[in-house]
Amino acid sequence: MSNVIHKRLDALRRFMEEKGLHAFIVPSTDPHMSEYPASHWASRKWISGFSGSAGTVVVTRKKAGLWTDSRYFLQAANELAGTEIELFKEALPQTPSIEEWLAAELEKGEHVGIDGNVYAAKEAFSLTHKLNLKGLHLISDYNPFDAIWQDRPEIPKNPFFVLPEKYTGESARKKIARICDSVEKSGAEFLLVASLDTIAWIFNIRGNDVKCNPVTVSYACISRKETVLFIDPAKLTDETKSYLEAEGVTIAGYSEVYDYVSEIKASVCLDSNKITLNLYNTVPAENRIMDIPSPADLMKSIKNETEIQGFCNAMERDGVALVRFFMWLEKAVAEGGVTEIMIPEKLMEYRSLQDNFVGESFDTIAGYGPNGAIVHYHVSPESSLEIKPEGFLLVDSGAQYFDGTTDITRTVAVGPLTEQMKKDYTMVLKGHISLATAIYPQGTRGSQLDILARKVMWDNGINYLHGTGHGVGHFLNVHEGPQNIRMNENPTTLQTGMVTSNEPGLYRAGEYGIRIENLILSQHETTTGFGDFYSFKTLTLCPIDTTPVVKEMLAKEEIAWLNEYHRFVYDRLSPLLTEDERRWLKEKTNEI
Amino acid sequence: MSNVIHKRLDALRRFMEEKGLHAFIVPSTDPHMSEYPASHWASRKWISGFSGSAGTVVVTRKKAGLWTDSRYFLQAANELAGTEIELFKEALPQTPSIEEWLAAELEKGEHVGIDGNVYAAKEAFSLTHKLNLKGLHLISDYNPFDAIWQDRPEIPKNPFFVLPEKYTGESARKKIARICDSVEKSGAEFLLVASLDTIAWIFNIRGNDVKCNPVTVSYACISRKETVLFIDPAKLTDETKSYLEAEGVTIAGYSEVYDYVSEIKASVCLDSNKITLNLYNTVPAENRIMDIPSPADLMKSIKNETEIQGFCNAMERDGVALVRFFMWLEKAVAEGGVTEIMIPEKLMEYRSLQDNFVGESFDTIAGYGPNGAIVHYHVSPESSLEIKPEGFLLVDSGAQYFDGTTDITRTVAVGPLTEQMKKDYTMVLKGHISLATAIYPQGTRGSQLDILARKVMWDNGINYLHGTGHGVGHFLNVHEGPQNIRMNENPTTLQTGMVTSNEPGLYRAGEYGIRIENLILSQHETTTGFGDFYSFKTLTLCPIDTTPVVKEMLAKEEIAWLNEYHRFVYDRLSPLLTEDERRWLKEKTNEI
Repeated sequence: MSNVIHKRLDALRRFMEEKGLHAFIVPSTDPHMSEYPASHWASRKWISGFSGSAGTVVVTRKKAGLWTDSRYFLQAANELAGTEIELFKEALPQTPSIEEWLAAELEKGEHVGIDGNVYAAKEAFSLTHKLNLKGLHLISDYNPFDAIWQDRPEIPKNPFFVLPEKYTGESARKKIARICDSVEKSGAEFLLVASLDTIAWIFNIRGNDVKCNPVTVSYACISRKETVLFIDPAKLTDETKSYLEAEGVTIAGYSEVYDYVSEIKASVCLDSNKITLNLYNTVPAENRIMDIPSPADLMKSIKNETEIQGFCNAMERDGVALVRFFMWLEKAVAEGGVTEIMIPEKLMEYRSLQDNFVGESFDTIAGYGPNGAIVHYHVSPESSLEIKPEGFLLVDSGAQYFDGTTDITRTVAVGPLTEQMKKDYTMVLKGHISLATAIYPQGTRGSQLDILARKVMWDNGINYLHGTGHGVGHFLNVHEGPQNIRMNENPTTLQTGMVTSNEPGLYRAGEYGIRIENLILSQHETTTGFGDFYSFKTLTLCPIDTTPVVKEMLAKEEIAWLNEYHRFVYDRLSPLLTEDERRWLKEKTNEI
Repeated sequence: MSNVIHKRLDALRRFMEEKGLHAFIVPSTDPHMSEYPASHWASRKWISGFSGSAGTVVVTRKKAGLWTDSRYFLQAANELAGTEIELFKEALPQTPSIEEWLAAELEKGEHVGIDGNVYAAKEAFSLTHKLNLKGLHLISDYNPFDAIWQDRPEIPKNPFFVLPEKYTGESARKKIARICDSVEKSGAEFLLVASLDTIAWIFNIRGNDVKCNPVTVSYACISRKETVLFIDPAKLTDETKSYLEAEGVTIAGYSEVYDYVSEIKASVCLDSNKITLNLYNTVPAENRIMDIPSPADLMKSIKNETEIQGFCNAMERDGVALVRFFMWLEKAVAEGGVTEIMIPEKLMEYRSLQDNFVGESFDTIAGYGPNGAIVHYHVSPESSLEIKPEGFLLVDSGAQYFDGTTDITRTVAVGPLTEQMKKDYTMVLKGHISLATAIYPQGTRGSQLDILARKVMWDNGINYLHGTGHGVGHFLNVHEGPQNIRMNENPTTLQTGMVTSNEPGLYRAGEYGIRIENLILSQHETTTGFGDFYSFKTLTLCPIDTTPVVKEMLAKEEIAWLNEYHRFVYDRLSPLLTEDERRWLKEKTNEI
């Protein structure tokens, strides 16, 4: 691999020399600012060999570096080994920022290249400013990968399908009307959308252009006058075409978005974090731009009654598959010979037997012992450990169903545990319960609640460096905004109907990792003289391993929550199970 | 009064007509963006009669309105009664913003005036933008009050004094050198300072131009080349003059700051929230402006060892005065005839007997029964209630000592309480303890911790609408930034050496209010494999009334904290008390 990477970097450098560029920045995204891009746009992976979901490669004429975050330090180090690409660990005090590094490597007046078609407008503006301060110039005109990537995959042309209203709960026509109202309120006439999950939600369509994310590559532009979906004609069937037309949607070619936008003569609402520099620059300079979080993103995050019911139904089927999986695991580990790599397969096997199953919602993380401490561990034949009957196994997985998306983590004791393991597990559970039982006034942001999941750990000098909760799409991306529950500030308030994960964790590098994750729904709890208060309803249905729990560490309210949750899991899942399975679940959901 | 206000509004309207203005906005601040301005700048109070610390008056040719926040709804309604000024309650859904109201009242193209000398640059920029969107123009050229305010008080010319290094712990020269380092790091050459408390801190000087805030009216401009203090020569004595010269400070006239700034030919660091529009616009347009929170403000907020020791010493003296006050109160209430208005006087009497006492740090809030529910209650002869031997009395007060500033709230049962009162009190206490005992990683912001003080209330559908904690100056303003502990986001992280208040409250309108406030110091707690963790040390020394406590509602750790706090209070104060007082304190600090 290292030889291949060397040749690719060489090709990029020749391209850079031709164009007078002294550095080139390769981000991990696509023209739609996707977290997970289709393979056509996986140029950062192609140029570096690093396969993580987040990371930026910077190549100068002499050096190359990859910047990535703590989730990927280990994986990146492995995947970059033998290449000339240096690993820069983000957020460590000694790590230079990309601009700082470029300022040190380049001479004043030199040119730094990006492809303006895969770079968020806002980030590009900020980068231009920062590079200018260092005397460097940003050039956004070139797309080297079309030239140097010989067998580059095509932009996907897969057909998409219509998700019926029995799953979506609201027609595209109605959603579009609501969006127009909201865009008007923001003071604009057009809404420009590049986010693939937002487009899928608006039009009630789903696709399979991106692994695990049921989206279809397209743009949309919405106004009172007309709603245009920009999409490759090869993706259309007679059925989807007439569906869209019936919903009042005009269809245009994928690349026609540029011409269309360049001819808009009115104010445009867009989110410069979610639109590429090139598309942003296509908006005629005389138009007023309302650069705000997309009103459609907020609408999408607030699930309607049908979507919520769908989530609940999907959770039942996912729960049945999980019960079968964990029953298998228990037996198989006892018999010996189970390895990490078998776990994603087995989960897929059980889930695929369920109604409405579409596929995984992300690559399963199955980390035994020390591998559990690697937050975004991806098992490979080389890394796959045998699961011995001792310690912890962490399994984080999820599925796409027509009626909902699931994402669940369970950490199970596959054999004897140390006292520290038990104490750590109980702390994670306490954090999970504390968030699950939170009551909060209308207007509360996730960053205000985040500490609930961490407090017991902070009290013990422990922390975890990932977020506590991310938004989850409805049969859409398993990570969606705008809300989340993190240490970082996010101005979005938690609103009733939002679905978010609740996933505190504790990781001891080289030893083990623990994470307990359910999906939770924001709901109205009470109205008092002090205003409206919200709470969470836990949606996920799967027993939480009680064998590691140190009961003395739990308050009586915490014990009550755990027992009540288990009663709820048993009541909902048992009618769907065989006698054997029911017996197993009964035991797993026994009161502590 | 309403007749006087009528005449003043008339005068302003005549001025507006002369200048072609259709509206005029009168904020509550001064050229230094002070929370409490000197009387010369109290033009909002003069024009409206409203005496609260926060509020903005807007006058059109036909109407007038006052916008203020929930702390002042009641007071404003009283003070505006009989005038034509309409009260606009901020943050209520039905309340229009000032721009919205102006857009409705004025015609497109009309002119809105402000005095650019008492309007923060950033706010003025934002206002310009918002008014432009409504087709209105902002004119910042006029100062009507010099013309229409006949007996306007002078800009203060009081002398200031030098606070010796035994109290400040660091010479002005050293502070200036540290500031220069920090300004250089930010990429600028000059630091422009208008905040009076920051100037007082930098130069180790204190004054008495503003009630309760020991500051002196001035500007400062700091660079490697020279440090200039712009101050009225009448304020200088031979001693202060030679002190400043010895510290390397150049002295110039107060108004000379404009000429000086207009001639700067280098990059300037300033905070557009803390500089007036006029001063901002004085910076030559070709200079680069680094508009960031002032590095000097952050330095000021991080107290050094001497300042911290000073706080602790001041707390002892304040605690002795408080013990004597509460002893008096107990006896006097039993005897009858005590009214709210006597409380500030009595507190002043006991405090003024203490060494190093300078004055109050803010106007004492003494609210009995329903008056306790008015968060910023200011007792007047008309409002003053007799304190009967039942229910709660809330006393929030503080003092300035040469070695520190205090701010403390106690709510005491002056007689029998209802069950709800006891439960409410215990919730406030639980919130207070939860914040006081927090452990948090380096990098934590106050907004992340705020929920600790509120959680028990949120669980019961209760909230309070003020912040949980504000920064406190060292023998300086009782409210200082940049840190705080609030529901609102503030990017400042809590750093060791910062002093903040911890003051959850619970208010039942028309019934009673409860607040328990101590000052807390951020300190290093432990370093683990997960990083550095901080905790709070409580500085305030005064018993917390235990008679309302519902012990069953407290966890054993909470009981332990309360008992330990009381042991600490007794140990520190008892050596300074008479036999009688000691006996009283012993009883008040008994274990529960």
